Amino acid sequence: MILIDGKETAGKIKLEIAEEVKKIIATGGKRPHLATVLVGSDAASETYVNYKVKDCEQVGFASSMLRFDESIPEQELLDKVSELNLDQDIDGFIVQLPLPAHISETKVIEAIDPAKDVDGFHPVNTGRLLIGMPCFESATPAGIIELIKRYNIETSGKHCVIIGRSNIVGKPIAALLAQKRDPGNCTVTVCHSRTRNIKELTLQADIIIAAMGQPGFLTADMVREGVVVIDVGTTRVKSDQTKSGFKLKGDVDFEGVAPKCSYITPMPGGVGPMTRVSLLLNTLKAAKKEIYS
Amino acid sequence: MILIDGKETAGKIKLEIAEEVKKIIATGGKRPHLATVLVGSDAASETYVNYKVKDCEQVGFASSMLRFDESIPEQELLDKVSELNLDQDIDGFIVQLPLPAHISETKVIEAIDPAKDVDGFHPVNTGRLLIGMPCFESATPAGIIELIKRYNIETSGKHCVIIGRSNIVGKPIAALLAQKRDPGNCTVTVCHSRTRNIKELTLQADIIIAAMGQPGFLTADMVREGVVVIDVGTTRVKSDQTKSGFKLKGDVDFEGVAPKCSYITPMPGGVGPMTRVSLLLNTLKAAKKEIYS
Repeated sequence: MILIDGKETAGKIKLEIAEEVKKIIATGGKRPHLATVLVGSDAASETYVNYKVKDCEQVGFASSMLRFDESIPEQELLDKVSELNLDQDIDGFIVQLPLPAHISETKVIEAIDPAKDVDGFHPVNTGRLLIGMPCFESATPAGIIELIKRYNIETSGKHCVIIGRSNIVGKPIAALLAQKRDPGNCTVTVCHSRTRNIKELTLQADIIIAAMGQPGFLTADMVREGVVVIDVGTTRVKSDQTKSGFKLKGDVDFEGVAPKCSYITPMPGGVGPMTRVSLLLNTLKAAKKEIYS
Repeated sequence: MILIDGKETAGKIKLEIAEEVKKIIATGGKRPHLATVLVGSDAASETYVNYKVKDCEQVGFASSMLRFDESIPEQELLDKVSELNLDQDIDGFIVQLPLPAHISETKVIEAIDPAKDVDGFHPVNTGRLLIGMPCFESATPAGIIELIKRYNIETSGKHCVIIGRSNIVGKPIAALLAQKRDPGNCTVTVCHSRTRNIKELTLQADIIIAAMGQPGFLTADMVREGVVVIDVGTTRVKSDQTKSGFKLKGDVDFEGVAPKCSYITPMPGGVGPMTRVSLLLNTLKAAKKEIYS
């Protein structure tokens, strides 16, 4: 069993990005610049945005954080988005979700220039993703693909069973792994809450991506020997073993499942760090105009 | 075994559309207007565009056909697209594909206003489709969904195996049937040329959508009793039984498979007529501003 070390891989990728930034600067190029937009003061959102700023610092990106009061009118936020679209110095930006109820997330996301949409949430990017065109892939699926690449996990002709059909994980990773490319070329099955016989399906899988947010859902009896398991779940569960009184649990019963796997991601330290680093990779692509010229 | 009669269903839908157009006109509304753009003189494209014009006439839509010489420069075509985007009288338009090699289909498609993209090929529409937002669904998957609806075929919790991963059929119908809605909520498996064990998968299917363009591929031994089979294949094969010297064949060995089915589409007369009528339904939605306001 090989442990897919997302933390280590993300660390390596950060060093690679930092190296590339140095080269860009050395050859007279502009420092890649990510802006983050934060509306209100949701604690989790604060944390995520702070991580993003810190990640930028680590790789040598410029970063800007734009904070707005929770009461900002929708139109004012849309105007800010337009300004960021036009700002030549900013290569990519993200609007941290969720937004307050009086603001349409859809409107805001669709107002972002797809060429600066490093979160990959604009329909132009999700649409390009579905049909296999160059696009900004959203962070978690992009991180999973990167792990598969870096661990040289064979995907062609493999049966990948995805549990969960969220817009930010299940649907895009299904589309990516079915594409005619490498990694890709998987036979892909998408399961979800309405699926009647999940175990029957997971027992056929060469690769399982668990992304439905049910702690410990995937158990040893549901997988066959040699399977590759990617755990995307991160659910807060109560715990008396931590100071905070809770801990994050994945969708996979790691202790039971791991011995049967050829590869498995731990939780934490698997997909999570890769999600964070994917935003940096997208920002670098935006700065280099790799997707949209 | 119930035969899913696409021809009859499409006929009914046309009458419904015609009825609605009459009402729109009677209440002082504008007649829905579809424009088709044809570049060059490809024989198949000519036929398709002529069908579209004829279909419009039948339901009382206005239609315009814009023809351009094969040598039209890309920029000139893009300018035409911009004109159509701005033309208040035109509710929706399609640019018949394929385009000559010197014109980028991607550029042309992305230049179309998504609100007028009744073919549903613009990434904003395919992206919205993937994430389950209102959109213009492309014609063939929309036609399949409409057939499933009108025949009250249960999809929730059913295992749908899709053979083929094209951008215009396999990928979008997979996304549509996995959505949390009705029809939808299927467990969806996408198979393709790299899938190793298609028969093993089709034997588990409650619903099979055959869309890979291999005449007669799906045979009786590959399906279980009670399955629903939708045949999307239309391949020209040589025939000495027709004047033209060829006939269209589906991906399903109808004679062998049909006796085992609860529902099956014939070929011709199944999905084909529904594909045509879907364009009319999309144009009506565009005229009524049902998707984009």
